[in-house]
Amino acid sequence: MTDLLDDRDGWSTANCSIARTLDIVGTRSAMLIMREASFGTRRFDDFARRIGIGEPAAAARLKELTAAGLLERTPYQVPGQRTRFEYQLTRKGRDLLPVIAALRQWGDTWAVPDTGPSIVVRHRNCGAPVHVALECDEGHGVRPQDATLEPGPGLIRTP
Amino acid sequence: MTDLLDDRDGWSTANCSIARTLDIVGTRSAMLIMREASFGTRRFDDFARRIGIGEPAAAARLKELTAAGLLERTPYQVPGQRTRFEYQLTRKGRDLLPVIAALRQWGDTWAVPDTGPSIVVRHRNCGAPVHVALECDEGHGVRPQDATLEPGPGLIRTP
Repeated sequence: MTDLLDDRDGWSTANCSIARTLDIVGTRSAMLIMREASFGTRRFDDFARRIGIGEPAAAARLKELTAAGLLERTPYQVPGQRTRFEYQLTRKGRDLLPVIAALRQWGDTWAVPDTGPSIVVRHRNCGAPVHVALECDEGHGVRPQDATLEPGPGLIRTP
Repeated sequence: MTDLLDDRDGWSTANCSIARTLDIVGTRSAMLIMREASFGTRRFDDFARRIGIGEPAAAARLKELTAAGLLERTPYQVPGQRTRFEYQLTRKGRDLLPVIAALRQWGDTWAVPDTGPSIVVRHRNCGAPVHVALECDEGHGVRPQDATLEPGPGLIRTP
């Protein structure tokens, strides 16, 4: 197998999936909106308050993430008030959960306050803590050094 | 087990590990620097060129990520030129690989060009594609709906 890393100057990063993902959720506030949505937060005021960002920023991020298809906006009405909208994760948005879990794991290890992590994620069935792991489609656990990068169909070679 | 999500108004997100992580790597350019470092890129010019950001931005991100302990800066010298510095991942930086892998996975699914992904990550031993998965410390695969959020020692309750 060819490991692309041995020939880093032979290809371009123009089609990078990581960069394309960051074009959509590459700001702190967008990622925190997605965290809140994964917590089940749905209403505008709750997003702004719990993230601690201003309403204009919350409105902009919710609009962008809805336009990008990560959130779905549906109307709701509290009796006697005007119609408002709530936001919930689409399939596309739910697929971001591994990113959020991996960010949490890094923070729990490297950026935790003296008091410890604020949240512990456990496996409902057995109670053991949950972590993010690399595995292959054959079900093997994969250590970073056992992952090899190969050219995909969208790779752009450089002259 | 108490699922914190049932009582979202009873606690604050002030200590959130995700937010703390994003304080360090929550910009597109910081995350792309980390992608490049994970590819083995070490030299200033290569970071700037491969990410496609200006030299001031690359310099600022490399300085911040070094100060935060994700990269280590070591001097090198090409004969006849002045001493320069190269950057490589520390343990703290390598621990971000699951985040990078999860961003790639999302992009490969949801933000890929018509030509397909540019890179395929495979398990060196068996050749199967690699993906990011949640598992518990007992070794069980964990579906998102089987993960439960519980109060950690650093949780800040709200009155």
